[in-house]
Amino acid sequence: MSREKILIEALPYIREFYGSTMVIKLGGHALVDEATMEDVIKDVVLLRFVGINPVVVHGGGPEITRLMERLGKQPKFVAGLRVTDDETMEIVRMVLVGSVNERIVSLISKHGGKGIGLSGNDGRLIIAEKLRRVRRGDVEEEVDLGWVGEIKAINPEVIKMVVTHGYIPVVSPIAVDEQGNSLNVNADTTAGEIAAALKAKKLIILTDVPGLLRDPRDLSTLISEISRDEARRLIKGGVVESGMLPKLEACVKAASVGVVCHIIDGRKPHSLLLELFTDAGVGTMLR
Amino acid sequence: MSREKILIEALPYIREFYGSTMVIKLGGHALVDEATMEDVIKDVVLLRFVGINPVVVHGGGPEITRLMERLGKQPKFVAGLRVTDDETMEIVRMVLVGSVNERIVSLISKHGGKGIGLSGNDGRLIIAEKLRRVRRGDVEEEVDLGWVGEIKAINPEVIKMVVTHGYIPVVSPIAVDEQGNSLNVNADTTAGEIAAALKAKKLIILTDVPGLLRDPRDLSTLISEISRDEARRLIKGGVVESGMLPKLEACVKAASVGVVCHIIDGRKPHSLLLELFTDAGVGTMLR
Amino acid sequence: MSREKILIEALPYIREFYGSTMVIKLGGHALVDEATMEDVIKDVVLLRFVGINPVVVHGGGPEITRLMERLGKQPKFVAGLRVTDDETMEIVRMVLVGSVNERIVSLISKHGGKGIGLSGNDGRLIIAEKLRRVRRGDVEEEVDLGWVGEIKAINPEVIKMVVTHGYIPVVSPIAVDEQGNSLNVNADTTAGEIAAALKAKKLIILTDVPGLLRDPRDLSTLISEISRDEARRLIKGGVVESGMLPKLEACVKAASVGVVCHIIDGRKPHSLLLELFTDAGVGTMLR
Amino acid sequence: MSREKILIEALPYIREFYGSTMVIKLGGHALVDEATMEDVIKDVVLLRFVGINPVVVHGGGPEITRLMERLGKQPKFVAGLRVTDDETMEIVRMVLVGSVNERIVSLISKHGGKGIGLSGNDGRLIIAEKLRRVRRGDVEEEVDLGWVGEIKAINPEVIKMVVTHGYIPVVSPIAVDEQGNSLNVNADTTAGEIAAALKAKKLIILTDVPGLLRDPRDLSTLISEISRDEARRLIKGGVVESGMLPKLEACVKAASVGVVCHIIDGRKPHSLLLELFTDAGVGTMLR
Amino acid sequence: MSREKILIEALPYIREFYGSTMVIKLGGHALVDEATMEDVIKDVVLLRFVGINPVVVHGGGPEITRLMERLGKQPKFVAGLRVTDDETMEIVRMVLVGSVNERIVSLISKHGGKGIGLSGNDGRLIIAEKLRRVRRGDVEEEVDLGWVGEIKAINPEVIKMVVTHGYIPVVSPIAVDEQGNSLNVNADTTAGEIAAALKAKKLIILTDVPGLLRDPRDLSTLISEISRDEARRLIKGGVVESGMLPKLEACVKAASVGVVCHIIDGRKPHSLLLELFTDAGVGTMLR
Amino acid sequence: MSREKILIEALPYIREFYGSTMVIKLGGHALVDEATMEDVIKDVVLLRFVGINPVVVHGGGPEITRLMERLGKQPKFVAGLRVTDDETMEIVRMVLVGSVNERIVSLISKHGGKGIGLSGNDGRLIIAEKLRRVRRGDVEEEVDLGWVGEIKAINPEVIKMVVTHGYIPVVSPIAVDEQGNSLNVNADTTAGEIAAALKAKKLIILTDVPGLLRDPRDLSTLISEISRDEARRLIKGGVVESGMLPKLEACVKAASVGVVCHIIDGRKPHSLLLELFTDAGVGTMLR
Repeated sequence: MSREKILIEALPYIREFYGSTMVIKLGGHALVDEATMEDVIKDVVLLRFVGINPVVVHGGGPEITRLMERLGKQPKFVAGLRVTDDETMEIVRMVLVGSVNERIVSLISKHGGKGIGLSGNDGRLIIAEKLRRVRRGDVEEEVDLGWVGEIKAINPEVIKMVVTHGYIPVVSPIAVDEQGNSLNVNADTTAGEIAAALKAKKLIILTDVPGLLRDPRDLSTLISEISRDEARRLIKGGVVESGMLPKLEACVKAASVGVVCHIIDGRKPHSLLLELFTDAGVGTMLR
Repeated sequence: MSREKILIEALPYIREFYGSTMVIKLGGHALVDEATMEDVIKDVVLLRFVGINPVVVHGGGPEITRLMERLGKQPKFVAGLRVTDDETMEIVRMVLVGSVNERIVSLISKHGGKGIGLSGNDGRLIIAEKLRRVRRGDVEEEVDLGWVGEIKAINPEVIKMVVTHGYIPVVSPIAVDEQGNSLNVNADTTAGEIAAALKAKKLIILTDVPGLLRDPRDLSTLISEISRDEARRLIKGGVVESGMLPKLEACVKAASVGVVCHIIDGRKPHSLLLELFTDAGVGTMLR
Repeated sequence: MSREKILIEALPYIREFYGSTMVIKLGGHALVDEATMEDVIKDVVLLRFVGINPVVVHGGGPEITRLMERLGKQPKFVAGLRVTDDETMEIVRMVLVGSVNERIVSLISKHGGKGIGLSGNDGRLIIAEKLRRVRRGDVEEEVDLGWVGEIKAINPEVIKMVVTHGYIPVVSPIAVDEQGNSLNVNADTTAGEIAAALKAKKLIILTDVPGLLRDPRDLSTLISEISRDEARRLIKGGVVESGMLPKLEACVKAASVGVVCHIIDGRKPHSLLLELFTDAGVGTMLR
Repeated sequence: MSREKILIEALPYIREFYGSTMVIKLGGHALVDEATMEDVIKDVVLLRFVGINPVVVHGGGPEITRLMERLGKQPKFVAGLRVTDDETMEIVRMVLVGSVNERIVSLISKHGGKGIGLSGNDGRLIIAEKLRRVRRGDVEEEVDLGWVGEIKAINPEVIKMVVTHGYIPVVSPIAVDEQGNSLNVNADTTAGEIAAALKAKKLIILTDVPGLLRDPRDLSTLISEISRDEARRLIKGGVVESGMLPKLEACVKAASVGVVCHIIDGRKPHSLLLELFTDAGVGTMLR
Repeated sequence: MSREKILIEALPYIREFYGSTMVIKLGGHALVDEATMEDVIKDVVLLRFVGINPVVVHGGGPEITRLMERLGKQPKFVAGLRVTDDETMEIVRMVLVGSVNERIVSLISKHGGKGIGLSGNDGRLIIAEKLRRVRRGDVEEEVDLGWVGEIKAINPEVIKMVVTHGYIPVVSPIAVDEQGNSLNVNADTTAGEIAAALKAKKLIILTDVPGLLRDPRDLSTLISEISRDEARRLIKGGVVESGMLPKLEACVKAASVGVVCHIIDGRKPHSLLLELFTDAGVGTMLR
Repeated sequence: MSREKILIEALPYIREFYGSTMVIKLGGHALVDEATMEDVIKDVVLLRFVGINPVVVHGGGPEITRLMERLGKQPKFVAGLRVTDDETMEIVRMVLVGSVNERIVSLISKHGGKGIGLSGNDGRLIIAEKLRRVRRGDVEEEVDLGWVGEIKAINPEVIKMVVTHGYIPVVSPIAVDEQGNSLNVNADTTAGEIAAALKAKKLIILTDVPGLLRDPRDLSTLISEISRDEARRLIKGGVVESGMLPKLEACVKAASVGVVCHIIDGRKPHSLLLELFTDAGVGTMLR
């Protein structure tokens, strides 16, 4: 394809996206592999060159586990959720806010952008309550997982302020409750809630698979577009694997207020740019 | 003294300070003792009630040492400065940004304010270079202390943005160099540089002594007011004890652009309010 | 009570009142006794130091009577209202606008504020019609008292303009009718109508008694708080004495649009400040 | 002259004057004769119809004398200036502010404009000092005339505020000194100083003669245009009669900052409009 | 009538019209006779002196016919409408936009105004469709007149922009269809539609007769004011002659949204000014 | 080259050009060949999609010659300049403003943009004087070419207004003199002067050759970049062929105030986009 064709294809997207907000969730490989992370951050900074306001939300489970182990603390999970006592919560904050978030902000700075790290404490950005019940199979049961929260509200003012002034916000998935306690919340869910609260143009979840697969073991079953209703049926049907589940739920939530959602392969170089500026698109789109 | 007298005394101060910025350095006892810290934060939040914009800068040396020890790492100091290798720097960031800063922001939120945690990475707030030389007695010698920095510039835009929108910024003393590396910087120095860059109305350093003492062992030798020139003479004379030295230097720096500086006793309840709103004043003033 | 307690008590009030408008009615002793008047004006000017916008309304009956007598004119009252022929109206204007109002504006200036005198003519601030009927006991009867008016409308734009630009407006209770004639109106009523039209935060009536007394002869029967409904019952019951009646009616009127009203003792030094900035409060509150 | 010629002649003046400020001094006949006053005020209100901002300054000597006499006080003059003791000053304020000024504001209102009465106390508009010396013939001598002032400064902010909001300010010639005392000042001088402080487009003094006459007894000696230098020579020469002197001095003062000044016959109907909107002009122009 | 009477009569009109928009249609004699055209343009420029925003719409039929003939092309009319093939349309554009419009803009410039020429292409100002049907007597029949259009919509943004910035827009009656083709539209209709879209204060049509005549051959039958309903009756009755018909229809259209319309004699000097600024008025008014 | 590489290459250009103004000169083939013209206009409209403000300037010599011939008028040239009598000037205006300009505005509209046609008359955009002297070889001689002008000043306000409101201005090279006469000016010169007056980011001249050739007959001698000094030397040396001469002079003029200039091949599809958004560049750049 000739250069001018690619440009003529891209320019209308650039116009369409100018001034819009996009929430980008970084997780998995993109956090673990230094080179991939740097590539993704480069693309995020490029987005601001064409007037897009990126909002980064990151995860960090493996890093938390690693520090816990170094401090001689055995991680414990119930229904896929990390049991979070006081000391674990302190470790979670140190890893997410003090380590992962700081690292992303540094990289943004290194590539010519201006980042600002945020947690749910900052401007009471993410309000949550303790999680009281989880679903196992068909049964919902009461649990006490310590400082594990479910999000109740987003106060997006602080993100809007930061974005308006030309900064790229980087958000750690830590929430605050009414009493000022910190709570551990899921990063995909956080990204979905923030995208919804901002009425973002897009939510883009970078992950380690090509997108939503009808059969997780067969890459040829990639679903390139799915409706909200169909996604809800899949979720209810219990056929979505556990890693994809919160991602798909986050998309359904955000799409319900008009956010266009994409689950794409963060391992593929520049998948972010290809998704945004070419007709082809990659991964799975949900709207 | 009657209520109305106290009010009539206070109202003109309130008018004078309305809309002004004050940098408040928290350290020592005020960080260690939970009740004292909560009292100080309550007063900080009250300041916003009367139109003052507080900017909090915190330290955290003992907390860093504690985590290093838990992780089996021996803290090492040269000329009072912490030798900071890669792993130590990671620990410093986790403790200052992920633990102490988050805790202060939580308390602000608990008492009705809206805080935002910042490090020198955020918006490239604090720019530093590696420290290459230290002074021991009369001799200046070359050193390599790892990621220990000296501040070269402050980009106060991010603080101004945060303050303008009604938030209380809480700053961790971590700087960034041109290559995007994090550096460990002194908290008192950071407070002084930020106060100068903001052309703050006041810099108030809360510490564990009543103020600057002519004889550190004799509380009756409190200096209630000192000029910049005299302070410089004391510093040169080598008679200022090591804990007070960076505080006094920070005041001299800030005062050189018109900031009125106070070193006051953070252990005394509400010393902040008494200093600001009564004719008496407490501690040592430098201008 | 310690200084810091008083301050901690006062600061939230200062925040609450910042930017709000308060109508202050001066009458009786506060107009007659020079020292008291000067004290009150000092406090009014202090209010602007903490961001409050005071609006002063004054009376002046005794001063009018004095000049009438000097000019050889016998004052005549019907149902407590001054019969006002052309010449009397001219005297009323000269005394209120040319003498009392000017005196208050001078004192504001002397104590560092900037006042502006206004009458109902200025910007057609107070619109009235001739009073046609008065109530004596249970009977309403037709009267012709000359240029005595009842207020029909307030055009608060001129006050808002003055306040927005940092001036303290001082209002004389003179109204204007559709034909441009001047009318003599009650000062308490004027204060109540202006407070209502401005949707002021508070209406504070300074008078010569401690507040509303259940038994006017017994100071121990002070009513510290009263509801609008109860006030209306008292008024209907005919048990309110004639001096207090227009004050109470003014409060009921203003309170009906959300103004919090206070009738306090203007003879007590700094009662204004104590009412506003302490938990205790003085006099009678109606809301 | 045909209607269209008059219009074509007038429209460029209307454009030229749009948005400009004009100080109009009312005195003599225009204050005494009700019909003339009403005609002048009608024209003043019309000026706002075409975007001109009129500022009215009035006199009132005869009215002051009348009230003094009614109150049994003998007016006394030295060098043409009214000796002003405390009681006289009180009478001056009552007459100028409470009577004449109020009357003009009422008439403005009656003819569809919105006036605001001002004295030198309002917003510290006119600052003066006690007059210490007067000139008699060639000799300057010390005097004590009581509360007679000479103007030291004008704070035009309050007039600008009023004008910006669409009101017509009406100014009484009363000044205030640093101690807050009221002082009696000359109305022509006041008009000239205000015109200068506002850098008005024009100063128009309405008087009882056709303009400046070379020979006061011979109307055919009207000077239709005079330079500042020539006016100064006339003043120095002592040939200007006493009523015209302060008018001419006021014009010289105002003209020195670029105000175009006119002394015109206030007894001639609509002389104001003819002066402003026709090529012919009336009276004497000084620039 | 005295000068001052004329001024007093005119000033309220000037106030009333200040800031308002007036659409002025130039046709017939005013386009053909150089001196008349220059007089009209002078008056149009004068209008801006008193804050009126004139919008000029022009015709140009005779000029088009002349160029067609020079190029050896025979003009053809059906039902009074010019049959417009491709070549004719090109000629229409050249004459209206390149010749007549440019000439008017030059004259505006010559007399101190700033004009901007516009056609319906500019900012898609005038949207039309091909005319498909015409009315002959009582019968409506299908026609194909080539590029003759009927107006479907006006996009007045470009006119508003031009007016807001102090320019006088001059509009040629050429429209554009959805496919970007140019269409020939009636100038009176265009003026009426633009006046309606702008919700102009007035539409003034300059023509070669004194106004609407009840009997076109009898000047004494001038109708000085007519209601919309009556105008509609005349139109339906078929008694309006063909030149007046589109003018009257344009007025009915514009009047339906509150525009006051005038058909006046463009041959009479300064009829525009007399209509606007005197009580008398000239020609026919419709509202 | 991969899609993502092309995008990564283009995005920084898009950022750099966002909000900037670019003057694009259309001439030669791009005006004659319908398909080429449409392609160029499509690209011009695309520029607005990425925040660039294009300003189009067009020529039209061959079209003028054609209409002159149809009207039986023999074109005459002196030193390459069209002798322009009154009738010729009228033809020039009709062709440029009424035909070529209208056609470009229509095409912009057809492709989704909003154009506005302008000539030098509009808002007195282009001020010129009659050309009095021309250079032939080394000799400068006096001439009278009729209405041929040389540009004296540009009033860019009207272009700025149009651009600010989102329109694409299309400018015909017709100027106006102080007396309001129209003058025929060179289109390349006009483009250069307008680019300079606007301090445009770029001036791009589309022509029928690949750029500036060292030897006009040898395409391999294309100069891809040239300094202003070198360009001046070429011009002085008399080796630039007559068609390229005004283009090169226009570039030198514009470059002297910082405009980056490009002479590119308008026959090559999308040369505009390739020049702007790829590292390669096409044609000749002068800065």
